[in-house]
Amino acid sequence: MNIANQYFEGIWLDNNKKVWVIDQRLLPFEFKTIELKNLEEAVFAISDMIVRGAPLIGVTAAFGMYLAAKEKQGINEAAKQLKASRPTAIDLAKSVNRILQKVKFEKNSSTEFILNEAKEIKLETLDQCKKIGEHGLKLIEDIYNSNEQKPVNILTHCNAGWLATVDYGTATAPIYLAHDKGIPVHVWVDETRPRNQGASLTAYELGQHGVPHTLIADNSGGHLMQHKMVDIVIVGTDRTTRQGDVANKIGTYLKALAAKDNHVPFYVAAPSSSIDFNMSDGLKEIPIEERDENEVKYMKGLSKGEIHEILICPDNTKAANYAFDVTPARLLSGLITESGICEANEKAILALFPEFV
Amino acid sequence: MNIANQYFEGIWLDNNKKVWVIDQRLLPFEFKTIELKNLEEAVFAISDMIVRGAPLIGVTAAFGMYLAAKEKQGINEAAKQLKASRPTAIDLAKSVNRILQKVKFEKNSSTEFILNEAKEIKLETLDQCKKIGEHGLKLIEDIYNSNEQKPVNILTHCNAGWLATVDYGTATAPIYLAHDKGIPVHVWVDETRPRNQGASLTAYELGQHGVPHTLIADNSGGHLMQHKMVDIVIVGTDRTTRQGDVANKIGTYLKALAAKDNHVPFYVAAPSSSIDFNMSDGLKEIPIEERDENEVKYMKGLSKGEIHEILICPDNTKAANYAFDVTPARLLSGLITESGICEANEKAILALFPEFV
Repeated sequence: MNIANQYFEGIWLDNNKKVWVIDQRLLPFEFKTIELKNLEEAVFAISDMIVRGAPLIGVTAAFGMYLAAKEKQGINEAAKQLKASRPTAIDLAKSVNRILQKVKFEKNSSTEFILNEAKEIKLETLDQCKKIGEHGLKLIEDIYNSNEQKPVNILTHCNAGWLATVDYGTATAPIYLAHDKGIPVHVWVDETRPRNQGASLTAYELGQHGVPHTLIADNSGGHLMQHKMVDIVIVGTDRTTRQGDVANKIGTYLKALAAKDNHVPFYVAAPSSSIDFNMSDGLKEIPIEERDENEVKYMKGLSKGEIHEILICPDNTKAANYAFDVTPARLLSGLITESGICEANEKAILALFPEFV
Repeated sequence: MNIANQYFEGIWLDNNKKVWVIDQRLLPFEFKTIELKNLEEAVFAISDMIVRGAPLIGVTAAFGMYLAAKEKQGINEAAKQLKASRPTAIDLAKSVNRILQKVKFEKNSSTEFILNEAKEIKLETLDQCKKIGEHGLKLIEDIYNSNEQKPVNILTHCNAGWLATVDYGTATAPIYLAHDKGIPVHVWVDETRPRNQGASLTAYELGQHGVPHTLIADNSGGHLMQHKMVDIVIVGTDRTTRQGDVANKIGTYLKALAAKDNHVPFYVAAPSSSIDFNMSDGLKEIPIEERDENEVKYMKGLSKGEIHEILICPDNTKAANYAFDVTPARLLSGLITESGICEANEKAILALFPEFV
């Protein structure tokens, strides 16, 4: 997608060897690209959230493996460090493991071989997002056509946008495709405390692409749904279990409850890379990352042209910072995958992905 | 309750004639008291949220009527201005109307008469909070005794603390009484975007009184309840209908849904002053205040010793700011009133307040 009319991806290669990303910590106030020069910088980029979003983390980790190989670092040790950089998103472990397995199977651990595999993972991620967009587009079109062609109101939480992937995004892919096709859409953008990915990233990328949207506090979605101001909710996922439970940004579960209570369709854009076929019960099995309490106590923003970090509570207040919650499958209308839309249950998921039966 | 070991109330009279309040806009970073010198200042104090919280707004409006009388302004016009200063809380209209009726009935519009009525309203508010505390204390004690005397985890949203009233608070009254009685309690404090009354006021007043608490993003409550980390939810109310629907700070409805889904008791501390016996269906009838979008786009806090207001989204992003939502009675375990605890339905409410049948 475009930023100031120039095309960008979430991660890219310069001269077929240098790895570049956008420093998402500075958005929406400053647009700065940054080269990841080695494994350490790739690990830091993931853990400090220079890059974030499950699919982009997966691709970045793959390029991290390439950077390790390039610098003659052991790839097993590199894999360990990368997998430990963030615990909840499954894409990360999957893409690292995939490279380890390929290396083992092909008996080829050359830098070029690993680079090619990383490029392959990137292309697949891009393709998955585009297909999710095409399948999800039908949901939006159906609402549009069954509702007197009024603008379709879509609520989303956090940033499962193109900035969280390589392009298109997951939750936003159907939105971009609908918008580009001329279907009038309007997006309610959850601010997404504590890190504000909605306010800082989703509002930013929708704005750059010209998609109408309104920022709301995370507390607002229930009220909007009670008053029929939301036609559909689409969110992303950091890990989806084989029975369809979804770990996504903290607060997703609350929106799913409100959607259920108000008969609003609630869909999760779930590329197969996000599905953990080794897990069933999301609430019991998915590890939930706890982050620094200062992400709750402080907020970052612009004051008089400068980025400030402000304290929003008494200095000695303790805070807790659970980064994700699990939405049980029973609350979902369905999953939008690259292979089609399915109900959130094991049978339906495995029907789309029979290779994992 | 105490601030830095000195006793304060939410509003007080100096020398039996000057009206003083705490400028709550500056908390928790600066403690400043401010005199309301006339009707205009009382109206501004309410609309700009120098004072906030349904009960305190009601008492402030009563003293606003006194200030109008003192300055020889027409009290009917004063009543109109005060009632228009904020639309959702019923206490405001109730206390203004009560003074108008008393003046009419007693044929006495003297400054002294109105002052006495305002003082009466203040005392009643104080007394209601204390009684709510005593009734709610039993709920906390029961949990404590039935759960091996482990600390009781209470979640609250916004500030229905003593800063929102004259003393004790509504939702916090049972908490303060339990703490003072030696029952170990721990409070999960919802940040409460967009105005952060939880982070700035509830965390502050609990801290000043020594009650253990942890600040969380509004998104977190569902996760905590799923993992049995919340024993009871107690919130306040800005308007309660005769069938038990509750308008409270935006986001309350989402917590009520999560409580229901996880079998966590969900109580609303509802002084009778908050009950609007003229309304039944809260979702259809209670007016929901929409506030300035800048409350969503900007946040206030401390950076390098100074209070800054920072922009947290792209400058040209639009935002919507619904200040309250309505929690349907069906999601409530009960109402804690000054006359006792009752189920949230018309029959049970009227059994406690037969004068409104």
